[in-house]
Amino acid sequence: MTFPSDLEISRTARLLPPDDVGASMGIDPEHLEPYGRTVAKVDLEAIERRADRPRAKYVVVTAITPTPLGEGKTTTTVGLGQAFSHIGRQATVAIRQPSMGPTFGIKGGAAGGGYSQVVPMESLNLHLTGDMHAVTAAHNLLAAVIDNHIDKGNALGIDQHNIAWRRVLDVNDRSLRNIVGGLGGKADGTPRETGFDITAASEVMAVLALATSLADLRARLGRIVVAYTAAGEPVTAEDLKAAGSMAVLLKEALKPNLMQTLEQTPVLVHAGPFGNIAHGNSSIVADYVGIRSGDVLVTEAGFGADMGAERFFNIKCRNSGLTPDAAVVVATVRALKAHSGRHKVVAGKPLPEDLLAENPEDVHAGAENLRRQVQNVRRHGVSPVVAINAFPTDHASEHKAIREVAEEMGARVAVCTHFTEGGKGAIELAEAVDEAASEPNDFGFLYPSDATLTEKIRTIATEIYGADDVEIAPAAAKKLEGFERHGFGNLPVCIAKTHLSLSHDPKLVGAPTGFTFPIRDVRASVGAGFVYPLAGEMRTMPGLSSAPAVERVDLDEDGQVVGLS
Amino acid sequence: MTFPSDLEISRTARLLPPDDVGASMGIDPEHLEPYGRTVAKVDLEAIERRADRPRAKYVVVTAITPTPLGEGKTTTTVGLGQAFSHIGRQATVAIRQPSMGPTFGIKGGAAGGGYSQVVPMESLNLHLTGDMHAVTAAHNLLAAVIDNHIDKGNALGIDQHNIAWRRVLDVNDRSLRNIVGGLGGKADGTPRETGFDITAASEVMAVLALATSLADLRARLGRIVVAYTAAGEPVTAEDLKAAGSMAVLLKEALKPNLMQTLEQTPVLVHAGPFGNIAHGNSSIVADYVGIRSGDVLVTEAGFGADMGAERFFNIKCRNSGLTPDAAVVVATVRALKAHSGRHKVVAGKPLPEDLLAENPEDVHAGAENLRRQVQNVRRHGVSPVVAINAFPTDHASEHKAIREVAEEMGARVAVCTHFTEGGKGAIELAEAVDEAASEPNDFGFLYPSDATLTEKIRTIATEIYGADDVEIAPAAAKKLEGFERHGFGNLPVCIAKTHLSLSHDPKLVGAPTGFTFPIRDVRASVGAGFVYPLAGEMRTMPGLSSAPAVERVDLDEDGQVVGLS
Repeated sequence: MTFPSDLEISRTARLLPPDDVGASMGIDPEHLEPYGRTVAKVDLEAIERRADRPRAKYVVVTAITPTPLGEGKTTTTVGLGQAFSHIGRQATVAIRQPSMGPTFGIKGGAAGGGYSQVVPMESLNLHLTGDMHAVTAAHNLLAAVIDNHIDKGNALGIDQHNIAWRRVLDVNDRSLRNIVGGLGGKADGTPRETGFDITAASEVMAVLALATSLADLRARLGRIVVAYTAAGEPVTAEDLKAAGSMAVLLKEALKPNLMQTLEQTPVLVHAGPFGNIAHGNSSIVADYVGIRSGDVLVTEAGFGADMGAERFFNIKCRNSGLTPDAAVVVATVRALKAHSGRHKVVAGKPLPEDLLAENPEDVHAGAENLRRQVQNVRRHGVSPVVAINAFPTDHASEHKAIREVAEEMGARVAVCTHFTEGGKGAIELAEAVDEAASEPNDFGFLYPSDATLTEKIRTIATEIYGADDVEIAPAAAKKLEGFERHGFGNLPVCIAKTHLSLSHDPKLVGAPTGFTFPIRDVRASVGAGFVYPLAGEMRTMPGLSSAPAVERVDLDEDGQVVGLS
Repeated sequence: MTFPSDLEISRTARLLPPDDVGASMGIDPEHLEPYGRTVAKVDLEAIERRADRPRAKYVVVTAITPTPLGEGKTTTTVGLGQAFSHIGRQATVAIRQPSMGPTFGIKGGAAGGGYSQVVPMESLNLHLTGDMHAVTAAHNLLAAVIDNHIDKGNALGIDQHNIAWRRVLDVNDRSLRNIVGGLGGKADGTPRETGFDITAASEVMAVLALATSLADLRARLGRIVVAYTAAGEPVTAEDLKAAGSMAVLLKEALKPNLMQTLEQTPVLVHAGPFGNIAHGNSSIVADYVGIRSGDVLVTEAGFGADMGAERFFNIKCRNSGLTPDAAVVVATVRALKAHSGRHKVVAGKPLPEDLLAENPEDVHAGAENLRRQVQNVRRHGVSPVVAINAFPTDHASEHKAIREVAEEMGARVAVCTHFTEGGKGAIELAEAVDEAASEPNDFGFLYPSDATLTEKIRTIATEIYGADDVEIAPAAAKKLEGFERHGFGNLPVCIAKTHLSLSHDPKLVGAPTGFTFPIRDVRASVGAGFVYPLAGEMRTMPGLSSAPAVERVDLDEDGQVVGLS
């Protein structure tokens, strides 16, 4: 018997009406706006109205440094959420909305997997309630206003060689990475080089994720720096009178989307998935809703603990004022083996046979990555729990090896089989998280807001990534000076680097030391509220493969979606 | 006292829950999917389930040749729908969804006006249920697949100089009209010239409007011709294996959106507004729903009767199998005066004073346009009713002049004040339409499907536009031959010309004769199901003005939208 596909499992789900899902969170139906029969938006008024309800425990799910395949962090987030109901606790799950570009590219969908999924997976993977499209519309309206401003005389004196705002689309389209626009005749704009990023990478998406209210969203949009004048002064969306319309386009998108898991656990889906040049976490307003529901709010942070969790602590929590009670660090046998440096995992190819053979030694050899990521969590005063996300190809001795490492560090640990078993496969994990979250909390930021940008970069690179030193390219250093001068110095930093290593170099597996961390460039997402130094080339517009999912997705004779996985 | 703004009036509306609006049409709540509290999508299953209900009268609203300001066709459509309830009849209204590009450009909204509006106007003008975004996503996915196919070896042998498929966005952005994409390095695609149209102009939008079912939508998407090989053979979306994913992206968008007027008349809003290179009518599936509801279905066709109504008869009705019972021809004093050739109306400028002065003579002098458009309706065997859309600046003598012209042609006629009075201002019109629609029906197409494309063009140009002759440019003639050879010859034609004249020349007002109608180029929307010859340059991507609505639209302190009008 073959294990059913995610889409097949998703189809068997018995879904509660959204009002019932909301009721299980104590949300009044008057604060729910239905979008189709299975999804509802939560009105932001619910946040204020529920402010006096008891606060749930706040648990972030992060991971060791993943392989290019990912280590099942969303699946574990969903599985953990489901598991709490098996131990008499009520959980809410918060995740980001998948991007349609990758859905039709290599992935074919991203909603958890197996028996730990958010359903209906077609809704989650396609359009959902249109938030991603609203971000596209708001972003590109601002882009049109910039070019129009230049065409109509450029009263603000925008330096056409110093425009930071590109355009966005939620599609994998490499042909749009670099374009020359404004061609044609005199009435067709001013020719200049520009390009498109995928919508998830838009600063508008980061604004949506970090806004604490509609008024805060409006203010952040106004602060977006789109360009500089010849004198080097920033030009904002407010200067261009575009921020009001952008806020209008986003006012529904700011309402979190309420869905459910296969086991009817409530799930708040909100904001996009981009974790390279942005902070890669679901939205603050979703967490504001979830933190006043049930016993536990389980929220997911992107990539490994050096990336998503560090930004969760230092960017998201700094903005929201919420403090976490525990952090789950997802680990897999395959990733730890890869961190031994003895195996290579390539996206789109089957795992090498020697990686699949029973070999606890390799797990031990790669365990330094797990140790460092657990430390990274502890560095913020948060209790770590190691979740061993089990695969059918794992061996008991290998799980035992991970347990030993975790226990030796004094961290709680649990083997999880939620992919094949749903919530009951993560009961041990839920119990461990429940204990960890009940310990006294000692949460603190890694750096103070009033440190300089350079100090912040150095602190993250040395204390979290394990670098000996930081080398900032002269042009980047000059830009950092400019940012301090423009008053952006108090912003947190979001370092854009590979997620495949603790360092800047994807080839350095395990827990590298003795390296100098390079900053090649630096940019400011002033509206979202962070500065992002770049430690390498960041791809912000994916392409399609030679056999993309788009070729397999279709409607069957009954009008049902096939080919999403 | 100043007359309140459209947005202010819209805010005063007492809205029925969508289920109650549906119930008034006899639609079972199980066939309604709520999108927020005020809009629902109608499941297409409702069409089959309601097939044995009595058929409503089918009334199309068209107009004389408009000025650049428009003559209130949507407002009249809404007002007429509202008026029927004042004479004991129940009507459903069908209109197209406004495009957000113009909403943030010059217009600031398009939902009817005054006391004849579709509400909530913010929902209608912004995103609605995301159909426009779904068209954008499906269109651009196909574009990405085309370029990816070329990058990955071009197995289908696409001629890169003969790619018909551009990209689309729902924004007024002249800088995107002409671009070079695929720049950068080897991994960033293949450089080539292309560009963006506004989403409403997408062939995918025309497919959505003309599809008769989900299966038919899927089939039409597959037939879209995106390019030609070096040998001149068409390459389709099916050849590129993209049509299945496109259909998946559009499956919710194919469900019509149910809204209501200020007087709670049900309104089906569906498909986009583009009427230049497309047929410019609301969707067939919306009319399939509306035709089995109440006593009358009032549907709007774009521009004057030479454009939207001709295509309504010969493209839309040919596809749907529905036959109209009456046609309303909207006329205004200002437009008829402009057709005298003695006044000039310019968009964005106040009307000239001499046009506003009482002058029934000028109305008579421009009346030939009304006569011709009434004839154009009659040419299809349909009963015309002239609706005089009254403005506060009109004089009774001028209304009388229009009445005389209509009566002299044996057409019913009514003065309407629905803008200031709502439905009761259009009671006389509703009574006239009710009578006209009850007359024996003699509907027929202007040309048979098996006429050649050239014959079809000639028939429309001479019999509808009033041309003496047609001159087809040699390159266009050659393309027409190719279309016949590829089997596209049985498609109807949708002539792309100015909407500001019965002829190809916007300066020729009234009812010009003695001209030769030029065809400069010709293209095929094979998926949508028509060939469109071009009688001039068609702008398919608008730009922003120097003071666009985007600068005025914002949120007020209560989070309410301001600045839409």
